[in-house]
Amino acid sequence: MTTSTPRRATVIGTGLIGGSIGAALRARGWHVSGSDADPAAARRALELGVIDEVGVDPESEITFVATPVSLVAAVAREALAATGGVVTDVGSVKESVADAVRDPRFVGGHPMAGSEQLGVEGARDDLFEGAVWTLTPVAHTSDEAFETVRSVVGSLGAEVLTLDPAQHDALVAVVSHVPHLTAASLMRLATERSEEHRALLRLAAGGFRDMTRVAAGSPDIWPDICTSNRTAILATLDHLVGELGRFRALVDAGDRAGLLADLTAAQDARRNLPSRVAAPDDVTEVRIPVRNEPGQVAAVAVLATDLGVNLRSLQTVDATEGRGGVLHVVLESSEAEVLHRALVERGYRPSLERLE
Amino acid sequence: MTTSTPRRATVIGTGLIGGSIGAALRARGWHVSGSDADPAAARRALELGVIDEVGVDPESEITFVATPVSLVAAVAREALAATGGVVTDVGSVKESVADAVRDPRFVGGHPMAGSEQLGVEGARDDLFEGAVWTLTPVAHTSDEAFETVRSVVGSLGAEVLTLDPAQHDALVAVVSHVPHLTAASLMRLATERSEEHRALLRLAAGGFRDMTRVAAGSPDIWPDICTSNRTAILATLDHLVGELGRFRALVDAGDRAGLLADLTAAQDARRNLPSRVAAPDDVTEVRIPVRNEPGQVAAVAVLATDLGVNLRSLQTVDATEGRGGVLHVVLESSEAEVLHRALVERGYRPSLERLE
Repeated sequence: MTTSTPRRATVIGTGLIGGSIGAALRARGWHVSGSDADPAAARRALELGVIDEVGVDPESEITFVATPVSLVAAVAREALAATGGVVTDVGSVKESVADAVRDPRFVGGHPMAGSEQLGVEGARDDLFEGAVWTLTPVAHTSDEAFETVRSVVGSLGAEVLTLDPAQHDALVAVVSHVPHLTAASLMRLATERSEEHRALLRLAAGGFRDMTRVAAGSPDIWPDICTSNRTAILATLDHLVGELGRFRALVDAGDRAGLLADLTAAQDARRNLPSRVAAPDDVTEVRIPVRNEPGQVAAVAVLATDLGVNLRSLQTVDATEGRGGVLHVVLESSEAEVLHRALVERGYRPSLERLE
Repeated sequence: MTTSTPRRATVIGTGLIGGSIGAALRARGWHVSGSDADPAAARRALELGVIDEVGVDPESEITFVATPVSLVAAVAREALAATGGVVTDVGSVKESVADAVRDPRFVGGHPMAGSEQLGVEGARDDLFEGAVWTLTPVAHTSDEAFETVRSVVGSLGAEVLTLDPAQHDALVAVVSHVPHLTAASLMRLATERSEEHRALLRLAAGGFRDMTRVAAGSPDIWPDICTSNRTAILATLDHLVGELGRFRALVDAGDRAGLLADLTAAQDARRNLPSRVAAPDDVTEVRIPVRNEPGQVAAVAVLATDLGVNLRSLQTVDATEGRGGVLHVVLESSEAEVLHRALVERGYRPSLERLE
């Protein structure tokens, strides 16, 4: 009688991401140790069953560093000293870490997941299924270490995107860091009109809420990110100010054709933005005007279930700012047609838009 | 035997907003005439039953001008000449119209509704229920005209917000016009990195999609808006660039405390942003991690229906960028507790956040 020995891993930092990595590995048969600077957090992770035991396992084949960005380099070096396996991290800035941890057994990483920051209570073993997970190997990274991290991350269901660390940092400055500072700037603009604050807030429609939503997230991680990715953020802020200046000049000149051309280009680009569905497939958005009464969303969702079609995403959009709304659902194009037909038969007036 | 004579109204411009006004008035017993620069559009409005007949009714007690912003003043003057009743409009810029139409029977207006721009096909008689509808009477506006427009708009279910025209324009520059130009600028930033475009788009997470969503809307209305609200837009763009410059200085200096303070202030402001629910009441957001499988959203929505609680809004948030997601629903706080309890009993791990 033989029993297979489980593969062993350690997670350092047992928050939402670290906890989810632990849960995902355990679900795949791994033995997972976990530690956290806050001993209560590690105990809670154990209670929730996302790790097998508290501590750093010297036998770990792979160690995930899931601490705040500013601690990653020091913790990664400790992990390299404490274990013989490979070490990776999950921080949102990569070049400074790559420079500070020059070890063949270290591979920088960044899963695009978990922005909700719910803490370990939100940990789940499927958090990375379909998520994009960037890895940033450099010249001195061992091929074997890269291959180990790549295959483990892939086994969690993530799609691996390999980037140079500096390139990663430049790109996330554009799609994440500067947008966050911009959302905060827009909120500051709104709140500075304090004398007419209530009127302004009542005028703030769906677009403004969409644009400032990220500003509601915890600010705790941002000083680290802004410090670590300073160069790319400054360059991107300058670039954004340049684009705003371009629009300013068009508005100032009353250049209607120029405004239309630039806004049309932006519209085309936005419509070509991939949906969050990871697989490169053919998806369609179905927009369904509904009344805001109990059961309206349920009726559509149940109809989808009855038809056997899978809603990839579902959102009620406050197009109306009123008591009704438009339900947006995204699903595979073939399934969208099935849903559309069934909705029309039931008296809805849905519209369709193919997204890719 | 007596029959009551219906009140009479005209809608000029039978798109989404004009069509919805027609439908809402008809639902309340009015006789509605409608015209459109495009005769086919007016005929379609008639077919859809959102107007009673095509044309401008000289007996109209009230005429709604729902044309593009650049045409409002001329069309309003024609309507004042053609009818003896009051005239109002629905354009998103108010001062230029107030200056151009100096008539006691004219009251500028702007319902915050219908950003989806679905055209008359999306018209609905409940579009304005709970919506904020700004009216901008000026010194020479007759009290009787203002009271007529106020009461008719209120009868459609809208909440009336009375503002000075210039103040309205300054506020919508902050919450709508400049955010739109900012979203377009962010899209331009993203697309200009064409050599690494696919990687960037794969990295673009929920926050970026939220921030650029408005850029996907039709650009057609924006040259008009930018021309009509030029002064306020230029001032607000300058203000935004100033705020971005402030963040730039903090990032450049590595001022962690300053970044944390400013981002915390923005977070507080965003969390205090009223939900779109019009009534000043006590609402709570329930966040429910769900797997992305057919029936997951339906199960929650059906549970809400079974419990008799009304989901004010519902959104699947791509926190995970993966195949699972977090379902955000907003409902009255007392109802949120009922839903929360029922979810926990069924093995979900929901979290609650009171919004107001």
